[in-house]
Amino acid sequence: MRMYDLILKKRDGGVLTKEEISYFISEYTKGNVPDYQAAALLMTIYFQKMNEEETVNLTEAMMNSGETIDLSAIEGVKVDKHSTGGVGDKTTIALGPIIAACGVPLAKMSGRGLGHTGGTIDKLESIPGFNVNMTIDKFINNVNNFKIAVAGQTANLAPADKLIYALRDVTATVDNISLIASSIMCKKLASGADSILLDVKTGSGAFMKDTDGAFDLAVEMVKIGNNMNRNTIALVTNMDQPLGNAVGNSLEIKEAIETLKGNGPEDFRELCITLASYMLLLAKNVNSVDQGRKKAEEVISNGKAFKVLKTFVTEQGGDVNYIQNIDLLPKSKKIYELKSKETGYINKIAAETVGLSALALGAGRETKDSTIDLSVGIVLNKKAGDYVQKDETLAYIHYNDDAKKKNAVNKLKTAYMINEKNEANTQLVFGIVTADGIKRL
Amino acid sequence: MRMYDLILKKRDGGVLTKEEISYFISEYTKGNVPDYQAAALLMTIYFQKMNEEETVNLTEAMMNSGETIDLSAIEGVKVDKHSTGGVGDKTTIALGPIIAACGVPLAKMSGRGLGHTGGTIDKLESIPGFNVNMTIDKFINNVNNFKIAVAGQTANLAPADKLIYALRDVTATVDNISLIASSIMCKKLASGADSILLDVKTGSGAFMKDTDGAFDLAVEMVKIGNNMNRNTIALVTNMDQPLGNAVGNSLEIKEAIETLKGNGPEDFRELCITLASYMLLLAKNVNSVDQGRKKAEEVISNGKAFKVLKTFVTEQGGDVNYIQNIDLLPKSKKIYELKSKETGYINKIAAETVGLSALALGAGRETKDSTIDLSVGIVLNKKAGDYVQKDETLAYIHYNDDAKKKNAVNKLKTAYMINEKNEANTQLVFGIVTADGIKRL
Repeated sequence: MRMYDLILKKRDGGVLTKEEISYFISEYTKGNVPDYQAAALLMTIYFQKMNEEETVNLTEAMMNSGETIDLSAIEGVKVDKHSTGGVGDKTTIALGPIIAACGVPLAKMSGRGLGHTGGTIDKLESIPGFNVNMTIDKFINNVNNFKIAVAGQTANLAPADKLIYALRDVTATVDNISLIASSIMCKKLASGADSILLDVKTGSGAFMKDTDGAFDLAVEMVKIGNNMNRNTIALVTNMDQPLGNAVGNSLEIKEAIETLKGNGPEDFRELCITLASYMLLLAKNVNSVDQGRKKAEEVISNGKAFKVLKTFVTEQGGDVNYIQNIDLLPKSKKIYELKSKETGYINKIAAETVGLSALALGAGRETKDSTIDLSVGIVLNKKAGDYVQKDETLAYIHYNDDAKKKNAVNKLKTAYMINEKNEANTQLVFGIVTADGIKRL
Repeated sequence: MRMYDLILKKRDGGVLTKEEISYFISEYTKGNVPDYQAAALLMTIYFQKMNEEETVNLTEAMMNSGETIDLSAIEGVKVDKHSTGGVGDKTTIALGPIIAACGVPLAKMSGRGLGHTGGTIDKLESIPGFNVNMTIDKFINNVNNFKIAVAGQTANLAPADKLIYALRDVTATVDNISLIASSIMCKKLASGADSILLDVKTGSGAFMKDTDGAFDLAVEMVKIGNNMNRNTIALVTNMDQPLGNAVGNSLEIKEAIETLKGNGPEDFRELCITLASYMLLLAKNVNSVDQGRKKAEEVISNGKAFKVLKTFVTEQGGDVNYIQNIDLLPKSKKIYELKSKETGYINKIAAETVGLSALALGAGRETKDSTIDLSVGIVLNKKAGDYVQKDETLAYIHYNDDAKKKNAVNKLKTAYMINEKNEANTQLVFGIVTADGIKRL
């Protein structure tokens, strides 16, 4: 087999076989295929696209390019959740304890990555002592004993994806649906869950800006998952404004804790309950989404979910006092109040701009080696659809450095669109994609 | 300027500016653009194509990536000829002396390259002592004094083309008309001629197998030449069977000498006279192609062209006795006669197959480092349109090695298509492309 022939075949509209795709992936991972041939092939895929079978084969080959995690020692149906990412997305921290409290095991591998704020792991590390480095045995034991564990992603999960993503990033071949879907799914599949719930975000703060594109991606990923014998469902959800009120690491932890205590912002609570209800369904823990919703609401109101959170934190070395008393969590030195210059309805809070403001404060990583300031961030006081008076507080900016604050405020000011009429679209879930098709809401 | 933005722009259907194209070419030549980005850009060009302006700008940038030859010290209009290559194409060796004998200077830079036989330079080196390594001063002096000189191509003519061609060759991005045309034309333009005659071959032995493709390439190259202020004309000519009878280095030299003496095969003689008549027109040496044709025929029949050949060979160090007595030229040890198994009209002699047979005998280079056997090759005894009796000789195979001969014979046998009816298409020139358009014949 020769790479040249694969490029030519795809260029001329051919369909690559399973053997050809796995040749490309395994030889590229070994360093036997030069970057220029991989780049040429990726560009032919951009133009000629891949069909469903090719996309599944690509995903499987990337999954098999490194370690795959065996979770069979964990009892019950293992359900994983993946969000395509957005601003203020602290979902895992609240959702994990909810479904664990319902009796469904959550064995979560999570990353740090680049972004407006840190990843789930960075957020959890706001709690002193919290540790995500553990052996696979300890990870499995924790899940069996406490129904929940979160571990840092091992270095060798789908190495082909890392190599290919880096190449796509510099050759303008990122935005192809098969390449995006396979890149996400190969890592999920390698992580060993039986069922997968995908939260595909759409809107100004999401990778997929438009809803149709988000549904396309959802359909592609659901096809891959089900083809690979993982029961897979996707929800397409709103990321046009930040999720919840808090954007920033310790600020988000606080919001997640509040939510498990039965407080917390309405949109975030609602999304957690919705996602939980589908996860419980995928785990066969309930027979319907409605049953799932009731069960999820119950474990919040009776305090079981919050109790699981405390056990989870304790078992991973974290100081549980910080959960009991969230005032102990990292706090910024100063808080600035951003006031409204207008009176009217908030029609938009551009999520990406809020994210960039948080990044400017130091809440996220600009490069792999950046240090995160866990204490800084933004807490929205008003959300889309709210009425605001002139001089009322729009948002609280938690900061440690005046220059960074100035930069963040200048950005944040531009995020708001305030009008006399309320035309905000605050629909939270746009639709559900299953193996049976799309259901738009 | 960033390569990423150029790839993205072209991928999305944009038109690259002159500055962007010259940035790519100059930075790639310097080694500042990685191969993977160049490969990605070439693949976008394959899919999105380049318009006329982009193609001209690409050609100019590649021309300027290395040395350009200044021929202004040569008196008169300098006309260059370029053939896109075929089997048995020894045209330059006969054509040069013809136009020089008419008073038009021929300052020719020629290559060796890979192919079924050697290049023009290899063929000329069948003559002992013949030397193509000379200073640019000696080259110009020879042209001024004797109207003809052939030099080996300097190493640094259009280095960007060498780099890009090598990359296209391994990334399935060879067959794009803009990339093909610019690759040929950048070297011609760097060689310094005022006017250019292109012989675009079409048929089984040519790079362009179909006639429409050959006309497209001719149009593209004529546009580039004229845009760059070189008076450029292209002829689209037949390369479905080998040109002339001889395929092999010293065998082709002999055929070219015979042609200058007024003998030689009809098709080869006719093509030389046709090409000469257009070159004389481009040089403003005559006022019409008909006048050019008469003049070319005259210098053959009155011996002037043959006399120029002898001077040319002598002045470049070659032993003129080998021209006077062609029996002295390198000869193979043995000759095998390939007999016909059928009686009928020869409808086809697949040129590429004949070329591969010659290559199998050792007449050409398989890799850059191969040594050429100047003595071996094939001489056709019958051509397309001829009637052949069973057991009559189709071709003479000049060989030195029995195993190679066997291999060559096995190939050559498959080149012939013999039928009861004569349906051979032996039209020599299919059309002429000038700045005014296409004239099909």
